[in-house]
Amino acid sequence: MKASIVGASGYAGEELIRLLHGHPNVEIAHLTSERHTGERISKLYPHLKNIYENEFESMENVRRIAEGSDVLFIALPHGHAMKIVKELAELPVRIIDLGADYRFTDTAVYEEWYHVEHIDTHADRAYGLSELYREQVRSARIIGNAGCYTTASILALAPLVKAHLVNTDSILVDAVSGVSGAGRSPKESTHYPEFYDSFTAYGAVSHRHTPEIEQALHDVGGENITINFTPHLAPISRGILTTCYATLHEGISADEIDEAFVSLYADEFFVRLLGRGAYPATKQVRGTNYCDIAWHIDPRTHRVIVFSAIDNLVKGAAGQAIQNMNIAFGLDERTGLDLVPMYP
Amino acid sequence: MKASIVGASGYAGEELIRLLHGHPNVEIAHLTSERHTGERISKLYPHLKNIYENEFESMENVRRIAEGSDVLFIALPHGHAMKIVKELAELPVRIIDLGADYRFTDTAVYEEWYHVEHIDTHADRAYGLSELYREQVRSARIIGNAGCYTTASILALAPLVKAHLVNTDSILVDAVSGVSGAGRSPKESTHYPEFYDSFTAYGAVSHRHTPEIEQALHDVGGENITINFTPHLAPISRGILTTCYATLHEGISADEIDEAFVSLYADEFFVRLLGRGAYPATKQVRGTNYCDIAWHIDPRTHRVIVFSAIDNLVKGAAGQAIQNMNIAFGLDERTGLDLVPMYP
Amino acid sequence: MKASIVGASGYAGEELIRLLHGHPNVEIAHLTSERHTGERISKLYPHLKNIYENEFESMENVRRIAEGSDVLFIALPHGHAMKIVKELAELPVRIIDLGADYRFTDTAVYEEWYHVEHIDTHADRAYGLSELYREQVRSARIIGNAGCYTTASILALAPLVKAHLVNTDSILVDAVSGVSGAGRSPKESTHYPEFYDSFTAYGAVSHRHTPEIEQALHDVGGENITINFTPHLAPISRGILTTCYATLHEGISADEIDEAFVSLYADEFFVRLLGRGAYPATKQVRGTNYCDIAWHIDPRTHRVIVFSAIDNLVKGAAGQAIQNMNIAFGLDERTGLDLVPMYP
Amino acid sequence: MKASIVGASGYAGEELIRLLHGHPNVEIAHLTSERHTGERISKLYPHLKNIYENEFESMENVRRIAEGSDVLFIALPHGHAMKIVKELAELPVRIIDLGADYRFTDTAVYEEWYHVEHIDTHADRAYGLSELYREQVRSARIIGNAGCYTTASILALAPLVKAHLVNTDSILVDAVSGVSGAGRSPKESTHYPEFYDSFTAYGAVSHRHTPEIEQALHDVGGENITINFTPHLAPISRGILTTCYATLHEGISADEIDEAFVSLYADEFFVRLLGRGAYPATKQVRGTNYCDIAWHIDPRTHRVIVFSAIDNLVKGAAGQAIQNMNIAFGLDERTGLDLVPMYP
Repeated sequence: MKASIVGASGYAGEELIRLLHGHPNVEIAHLTSERHTGERISKLYPHLKNIYENEFESMENVRRIAEGSDVLFIALPHGHAMKIVKELAELPVRIIDLGADYRFTDTAVYEEWYHVEHIDTHADRAYGLSELYREQVRSARIIGNAGCYTTASILALAPLVKAHLVNTDSILVDAVSGVSGAGRSPKESTHYPEFYDSFTAYGAVSHRHTPEIEQALHDVGGENITINFTPHLAPISRGILTTCYATLHEGISADEIDEAFVSLYADEFFVRLLGRGAYPATKQVRGTNYCDIAWHIDPRTHRVIVFSAIDNLVKGAAGQAIQNMNIAFGLDERTGLDLVPMYP
Repeated sequence: MKASIVGASGYAGEELIRLLHGHPNVEIAHLTSERHTGERISKLYPHLKNIYENEFESMENVRRIAEGSDVLFIALPHGHAMKIVKELAELPVRIIDLGADYRFTDTAVYEEWYHVEHIDTHADRAYGLSELYREQVRSARIIGNAGCYTTASILALAPLVKAHLVNTDSILVDAVSGVSGAGRSPKESTHYPEFYDSFTAYGAVSHRHTPEIEQALHDVGGENITINFTPHLAPISRGILTTCYATLHEGISADEIDEAFVSLYADEFFVRLLGRGAYPATKQVRGTNYCDIAWHIDPRTHRVIVFSAIDNLVKGAAGQAIQNMNIAFGLDERTGLDLVPMYP
Repeated sequence: MKASIVGASGYAGEELIRLLHGHPNVEIAHLTSERHTGERISKLYPHLKNIYENEFESMENVRRIAEGSDVLFIALPHGHAMKIVKELAELPVRIIDLGADYRFTDTAVYEEWYHVEHIDTHADRAYGLSELYREQVRSARIIGNAGCYTTASILALAPLVKAHLVNTDSILVDAVSGVSGAGRSPKESTHYPEFYDSFTAYGAVSHRHTPEIEQALHDVGGENITINFTPHLAPISRGILTTCYATLHEGISADEIDEAFVSLYADEFFVRLLGRGAYPATKQVRGTNYCDIAWHIDPRTHRVIVFSAIDNLVKGAAGQAIQNMNIAFGLDERTGLDLVPMYP
Repeated sequence: MKASIVGASGYAGEELIRLLHGHPNVEIAHLTSERHTGERISKLYPHLKNIYENEFESMENVRRIAEGSDVLFIALPHGHAMKIVKELAELPVRIIDLGADYRFTDTAVYEEWYHVEHIDTHADRAYGLSELYREQVRSARIIGNAGCYTTASILALAPLVKAHLVNTDSILVDAVSGVSGAGRSPKESTHYPEFYDSFTAYGAVSHRHTPEIEQALHDVGGENITINFTPHLAPISRGILTTCYATLHEGISADEIDEAFVSLYADEFFVRLLGRGAYPATKQVRGTNYCDIAWHIDPRTHRVIVFSAIDNLVKGAAGQAIQNMNIAFGLDERTGLDLVPMYP
């Protein structure tokens, strides 16, 4: 099985290379980068020396690349994938877009939050949050891989929403990400001396992952949901931790809450339920596709607090993309992803 | 003016030394530590070499120490200060307790959350959150210095609660602290390789700063308030960032919110209003007594989100203790505290 | 093939578990820990939840454990392995000791630097620095896995010493390690707030890796060599970088130096030569068994400076142990170790 | 006394502001930045909000600025200061250049290592390493503030060289710096995710601080000295640690070495001798003008190893600049610099 990565010079692309290297069924065929066309990837990423010495190609060859590939991962900023997909419309290649272009059922929501026109209304697509949209992923030609914050947030809240245990107006997600989520381009705000030993928030009331979370919770529970989502940046490289709040409907017992989590995730390999009263930590999933979840109940305020932790580059990007690829190609979902977190 | 520190071997005690070194009116008279009695402080803290070479004394001498001091800072775990205060009942020394013993008006609340009996019902005391309890601090003999999380949370929420702009059932505080707040004793959870590159939560629905925040918000607004408070630990040394949520009463305008902050803090030297739409960062207050505050309004959910940042060892402990001392002794509140944050 | 780990609760033991999980020929049979006997390993290391739920056994069962194992990894402080080996003298199990007990040809050197009597003079052993002692490792029953600093230092200097290019009195090794090398027990010096944002040295002129480096360089070049070795601790979790200095014999050309490195390592999978003028970085080998090497020549001082980088827990401990196991059992040396560094 | 800073938008300029804020004799008159002319400094550095709200001026006004200033700090890349000094030739203002333009007695050395022509041969200048060139600093109009690595290296080695205890051909300096030394411009190499959890070297055999160290050691000991200097970058923000090696002349005793340090530095406030066998750490001087020094003797190799630690932005830049200013203006050298390190 041949895989190619369009936009392979960013962290998500590079993480796909790391994970695919250990995948027994996949060979990497092509890597593209506009800025680094013709350069060896090991020049840009010296940690790949001797492992991958491929040269980046230009996206101009995407048609030829797609023809020589079974699966195409697109790891580009939003707005690019839909153009590529359009160009490759009649080819059999399966496409997994790690950007936002194919995440929304209602393209009007996409256009409102991303401020670009959606040029492709290709019907044959699925939202790539593997655990909740597995059937759609299995058959879709185009998979809009779920976002990093959204994966962690939705997996944390889905059991409560699905079981109708919480007031849908009461949901807040307070999330923290490592800085690799901000990409590889150096900026003042992520310059080491500036970012180091600091903690701050950004994107309050306006982050684009907000409607994506709302869409999935609506899918899961059947009700319209409006949330607050507040992202923060911590001086860590990888990892997302979400702290999700919701007010319980009257009379909901702790057992009902426990049961909601267990019934949804008991058979999910990549969701690890730490249980009521526990605390996930980003380090405990580092480098892997796991999503760790725990929850707490406050009898004083009748709120439930759910914590979830993922590695933003794995379950939040490259790992889930491979999980989706495995589903789409009928492989065991764990293939290439049965890894032990790198600790400490 | 002579100051002594009881329990000077922890981070709060050591930070008092750093700050008092630059205070023109104060000379450090005595330092105590039970575990290190007889040792030079510079052996425990080599950064103090040549600067302080005092030996730690034992608390057994606290009466003699108090007699030779104008102000006594107590930086011990809760439960100790009330015993010391009782012993020194009739002495004129002013006492500033950095622990929890003198923070609660209603000692029953203290007893419920701290699981110890309160042995002292000394009337002559004040809650040491300088900006909001200045008059009480001025005259009290015993000052219960406000906690670190609580200082940041209360200063963030007080304007909204005082102006009755928010639903008092809707308040949540999601807070993040640097690890110096957990003290100097090595633990597995704060062992470098374990803690590094990780982010996690703790103390959900049960942290002892919860009732302290509720008490102060009640004092400010006159209404009973029950909140959720969720602390997290980030891999930074110093700093607290709070993200506070509350639902606005219907029809509250952005201007009214802005006005609430400005009217309460316009004349406060140590509260810096960054304004609506801004983001405080812990690094921007590092090493200083500032509390930076900004707020955001979400028209979709009718919530207001307030961020505040402090240095947990300064405004959250030693700095506010000195601010309280300045108030109590009639000095300019800024004396010794007019510092520039250490950046980067 | 069944592998057991004696002393599995430390970082080296836990890293063996991570790496062996991906090894197609090995199944983990037993794990021991005296302090945690009877506990599930996932309680101590929550990142292993669902992956390994084995209970730690006691070392008291080591005989039974050894009988049920093809290979026994010992990850204990020095002094313990020789007792275990003695007890298992006639069993066929291959033993790989990650401690120092079997690293020295001359046990008198061990006794001088480690201050314990060596109770075992078992002849059938090899020094486990795979690239340089491959033949011995292949046949030995007991393998004394090379130390972390020593692996990086010896691989950096061996080409120069073997080719007799440098003055053997002139060698200095200035090395920096991540803190995981100091083990999992919390100490004040590695308490997060103390260690964070600091850089310091330790063990100058006395570190026990000194004679181990000298022994291997003597083996390689046939000359007695006395070096200075100065270790430092950087606020990183994993990784060792060495900066090695030596004075060139008169008239040695840059080409001769290049040739020395290439001729020794051209066929070595795990040694990556970055070349003259380059700079290895610990991050570029993180999580893998690679040793990256580069060198510089100073025409002003006639010195050559060699840099090498490894992951102290992989090539410096668990990875090299598995590499040695692969050699000893006739497997492809890369089995289970063909990993991509985790970046960023 | 009025001070102005030319090039105030970098870390050295910003640190001058922090330290001068606490200096009782100095008022900041003007700040310049070409890139940020007309902007408030608190926009660029939000930690200065309410503390300094000055606008950056353009260097075009440097003549007018100099006329209104008693002392001018220049914190610009090399090559700029000499142009400014030339322009202000006849003005009485004292000039302290934090760059390299005025560090070399022999401008040919400057030209060789910095690859620019030196346009100013102004005689009235001193090398600004306060402890060793105090008399020259006192009277010079132009002070070439010593470099960061060089200050730490020279203070470590001067006692040995001055007392003629070591072989002058044998000196090596292995140094590690925090990343603030690389300036405020974001680069890929100092992008947080890249730099984090990594350790590497740079500038081997070619760093420009090499000849500056050689010059000062020549001044101190009267002999020509050629050294190796190898800088490294650690993931810390502030701090330099040097590890200096030298071979002892035959028969030198430990007491003679101790005496060399004590006799040179016994009266120096900012040099703290930790003694033989100790280890300085960068954290123990953080935020202050101290240089901590310790040394070790290796009887096996007859080498002495000296460690020194400074804060690169203070004793390595802004702090020493103020120390030089104090000397030049006849103030107590400690004025404004009698600070306690910020710990932890």
